[in-house]
Amino acid sequence: MKALLIVAHGSRRAASNEEVEALAAAVEISCAEQFGYIGTAFLELAQPDIPTGIDRCIEAGADTVVVVPYFLAAGTHVANDIPAIIDEARGRHSHCSFELKSHIGASPMMAALVKDVATR
Amino acid sequence: MKALLIVAHGSRRAASNEEVEALAAAVEISCAEQFGYIGTAFLELAQPDIPTGIDRCIEAGADTVVVVPYFLAAGTHVANDIPAIIDEARGRHSHCSFELKSHIGASPMMAALVKDVATR
Repeated sequence: MKALLIVAHGSRRAASNEEVEALAAAVEISCAEQFGYIGTAFLELAQPDIPTGIDRCIEAGADTVVVVPYFLAAGTHVANDIPAIIDEARGRHSHCSFELKSHIGASPMMAALVKDVATR
Repeated sequence: MKALLIVAHGSRRAASNEEVEALAAAVEISCAEQFGYIGTAFLELAQPDIPTGIDRCIEAGADTVVVVPYFLAAGTHVANDIPAIIDEARGRHSHCSFELKSHIGASPMMAALVKDVATR
């Protein structure tokens, strides 16, 4: 089974973290065929952290975990911190494969999304 | 003429700010009918700042400035800081109208974008 883990920065504001959870719920509705489990995790300031989020995917039965960084910019968090955490998880879960995707800011759909917000 | 100003947080990393400028260039290609001018501005850590970005829209001939916050979460920057800067600009440019849009994280297209990144 393939799981999707949406990884966000995390905020001290509960409402910001809840926005990410609401997004995950919306993604879940449209991805039921592709992913048997969809979870969220936070790099810092909120729970669950990324290792816990990965563990939950595997407890749910995942043999593949697809990680999407919910970040706009390819800063240190995206370039270094998240890959290091995924590499650590590869060591702990050698029977599971991990696919780390590009941060969402690099999506070719982003320009269309910004246009939609601007003209709505 | 209607101008679009994409407002990002800004980063000490030049590459992050250049990602925003590249996005604006991509938006410009698809928005030539809707907007006569498209610019970027940064809340902090990078130039141009938001008042300068607004002034450039008006120098380009805008009588309406549409502002899109390129932020994922509705934190203090989106809820307080950016609206306060736009209100200040309304005082300086009384002949111009301003439309402050939702932050992009609230876009109904975001779930589809995340699905696309996850399944690409």
